Amino acid sequence: MHFEDTIAALSTPYGTGGIGVIRISGEFAFSVAAKIFISSQAMEDIASHTVSYGKIVEPESKEMIDEVLMLKMAKPNTFTREDVVEIHCHGGIVVINRVMELIFKYGARPAEAGEFTKRAFLNGRIDLSQAEAIIDLINSKTVESSKAAVSHLEGRLSGKLKSLREELVELLAHIEVTVDYPEHDIEEITGEKVYDSLRQIKSELCNLAKTFERGKLLRDGINVVIAGKPNVGKSSLLNQLSGHTRAIVTDIPGTTRDIIEEYVNIKGIPAKITDTAGIRATEDVVEKIGVDKAYRAIDEADLIIMLVAADTGVMSEDREILKGMKGRKKIILINKTDLADSSRIQEIRRELGTDIILEASVFMDQGIEGLETAISEMFYRGDIAKNEEVLLTNARHKSLVDKAATAIDQALGSFETGMPLDMVTIDIKSSADYIGQITGESIDEAVMHNIFSRFCIGK
Amino acid sequence: MHFEDTIAALSTPYGTGGIGVIRISGEFAFSVAAKIFISSQAMEDIASHTVSYGKIVEPESKEMIDEVLMLKMAKPNTFTREDVVEIHCHGGIVVINRVMELIFKYGARPAEAGEFTKRAFLNGRIDLSQAEAIIDLINSKTVESSKAAVSHLEGRLSGKLKSLREELVELLAHIEVTVDYPEHDIEEITGEKVYDSLRQIKSELCNLAKTFERGKLLRDGINVVIAGKPNVGKSSLLNQLSGHTRAIVTDIPGTTRDIIEEYVNIKGIPAKITDTAGIRATEDVVEKIGVDKAYRAIDEADLIIMLVAADTGVMSEDREILKGMKGRKKIILINKTDLADSSRIQEIRRELGTDIILEASVFMDQGIEGLETAISEMFYRGDIAKNEEVLLTNARHKSLVDKAATAIDQALGSFETGMPLDMVTIDIKSSADYIGQITGESIDEAVMHNIFSRFCIGK
Repeated sequence: MHFEDTIAALSTPYGTGGIGVIRISGEFAFSVAAKIFISSQAMEDIASHTVSYGKIVEPESKEMIDEVLMLKMAKPNTFTREDVVEIHCHGGIVVINRVMELIFKYGARPAEAGEFTKRAFLNGRIDLSQAEAIIDLINSKTVESSKAAVSHLEGRLSGKLKSLREELVELLAHIEVTVDYPEHDIEEITGEKVYDSLRQIKSELCNLAKTFERGKLLRDGINVVIAGKPNVGKSSLLNQLSGHTRAIVTDIPGTTRDIIEEYVNIKGIPAKITDTAGIRATEDVVEKIGVDKAYRAIDEADLIIMLVAADTGVMSEDREILKGMKGRKKIILINKTDLADSSRIQEIRRELGTDIILEASVFMDQGIEGLETAISEMFYRGDIAKNEEVLLTNARHKSLVDKAATAIDQALGSFETGMPLDMVTIDIKSSADYIGQITGESIDEAVMHNIFSRFCIGK
Repeated sequence: MHFEDTIAALSTPYGTGGIGVIRISGEFAFSVAAKIFISSQAMEDIASHTVSYGKIVEPESKEMIDEVLMLKMAKPNTFTREDVVEIHCHGGIVVINRVMELIFKYGARPAEAGEFTKRAFLNGRIDLSQAEAIIDLINSKTVESSKAAVSHLEGRLSGKLKSLREELVELLAHIEVTVDYPEHDIEEITGEKVYDSLRQIKSELCNLAKTFERGKLLRDGINVVIAGKPNVGKSSLLNQLSGHTRAIVTDIPGTTRDIIEEYVNIKGIPAKITDTAGIRATEDVVEKIGVDKAYRAIDEADLIIMLVAADTGVMSEDREILKGMKGRKKIILINKTDLADSSRIQEIRRELGTDIILEASVFMDQGIEGLETAISEMFYRGDIAKNEEVLLTNARHKSLVDKAATAIDQALGSFETGMPLDMVTIDIKSSADYIGQITGESIDEAVMHNIFSRFCIGK
């Protein structure tokens, strides 16, 4: 592919830091840089893949904007397979903006979200599932999910899929030859061979599809929401589960106005734990916003941990909140057991009924281990990630693998009902096409746009 | 200087982005990198100042952590004047943490705040005022302050100071020779020459000191706080001044719970504008925190813009707030003039008395220009920054320049009262010493520690 325009963006997070890296990619990357970068060597004399010290200078006013390092990388050995320049400036917001303004003024245009990676894909540097692995790697919040992403980035999923697709393409060629030259019993013999191969491929696709449950758990983790009325210990529980003090914990009901999230590892399962504002009827408009957000978070949860305080017992507010959780996957945690005797706790248990009910004193660090065990058993028993195994982690991929398997099923059915060999090619072709949509060998513009729009700017 | 240990840190802002840059500096930078970076070439065969594509791999488990670019830079042509390796990973928090863990496991230690720059200073790559310019550049919130910082980074302030200090050192040498070989009238002739030179140097120091008022304005800008009771239009005013919608503006009193700041340019003067929570008596504990913060912001303001609503007139709450601002530099802005007739506004003016009172309808975009003019005239008339001029922007520098000038004053006094030539050397020496403390030619450990601790980690 060849793009007429040269793109540029800040590739490091926007904010104050030691350095900021601005990336320029495209045909004019070097000429744009040459206009604003001054060093002891002329741009054309600087060797590829070397770093040079110099200054960014506004060409007209000769004003120096920053002292920088400039990394020149000539195609094709670059991420985008285009000429790339990286400018490493001081990491101040103003200085970065000033350098970017110059770059845009002298010939590059602002890159869209994911546009560098899109060019890497379109120029054949990576396939589509690797591009998707890059987003997953950047967004991964746990070690487990980053491992799954790196495995895809290494191309292990695409390697497997490509070889399955190649087998299908070879079968098609084989069928074609047979159909074109129908001699003796070749068609029958070929038919048997194709049938066996298809069964084998189908079984591999089904095995791959089965990994999705674990793969999704690894990639996205589970979405756990801590709920309850104000001051039952929600923020303290979040702090205990995440192992440090993040939420502000006070005795004032209504302190957690906004949603606070932490990513933790619960017995090998990545979990996003959301602490919500205490739920109560309130006249305060801003507090009401917090309560509404809490209800929304509860609606989206994979698991709700509903806290009830042992010292106050089940109050009308608790009953009100519990009413909205009917039929949802939840654990009721009786907290503050250090403030109540066991007969009181038994009474609370009787009142709460048949849900999964655990006891804890978050303040005394009691009952947390039991809670974690209960959560992990609710979602997965056994090891989620075996080394070396390729897991499907992406719903788009899962759906395409399913479709590819279904198409092969149809081909197998045609064989079984004695359809002529050339009638099954259409199903084999569509199966190969579905697999190709994962790796990007066959892909439409809309799907591609959708995928790259989920990237950040600068990647 | 030689440091035994090798340091490492993330040099880009902590967060999710396209790439993250981890910097390693010190004697073992290359050997640490060699343990975890795998590419087609061995570390020792990679040329200095070149970038290589490769993988970060955990040496024991052989697990791949990320695909990276690795920049190898051999001393002395590096920022720290030590061997430096930069690892450019994917910009995910988890992946960056995993790579950093490996670097720390295999021989580097976490860098302290500013430690890379400290090494650059101690190894003679930059002087102290340039190191301070780097912090200023990173932290600068306006184009004007970034220009002042770049000028210092270029060494224009240090150049001037170093030449003044050299003149003083030469004068000392001259005096010493004269005192050692007292012949004829040389002492008297030298005395006159020294006296004239000192007057010249003092005048240059005083001129430099005078630039501080403007330099400080450029660097720090003015601290403007918008205050008033709830729902008088404070957030809307902030939005108008900053030219975009940042604060949430609603009709609900008490919406702005936290302090919101924006950096804007008011007729060439950089200003930090702080929008505060509406001030009113409240029982709500969290709202009270906002009101307390508002009072603290008012205490620290260079200028208060106090908003009063034209439609409601001056109410008891307004009077209460105004009481706390007695004697402070302030502008009272009668807002919502579109909702009141002119006799009503005249009445409000009479009631408010003699302060600077302006009128506006922030909602109708009326009166903003007048407000900006009034602010700029209160702080500085004329151009703040003339091109090419070296400005003092740092209070530490200002204080040392003042001390250096005072010491020369004392030397001049000694001349005038006829003290012998060798009696003035002590004052000349201390003047040279004060100037040397700005550039770092003479500096004590505590001052240095103080300066570098204000840096971020990774710089």
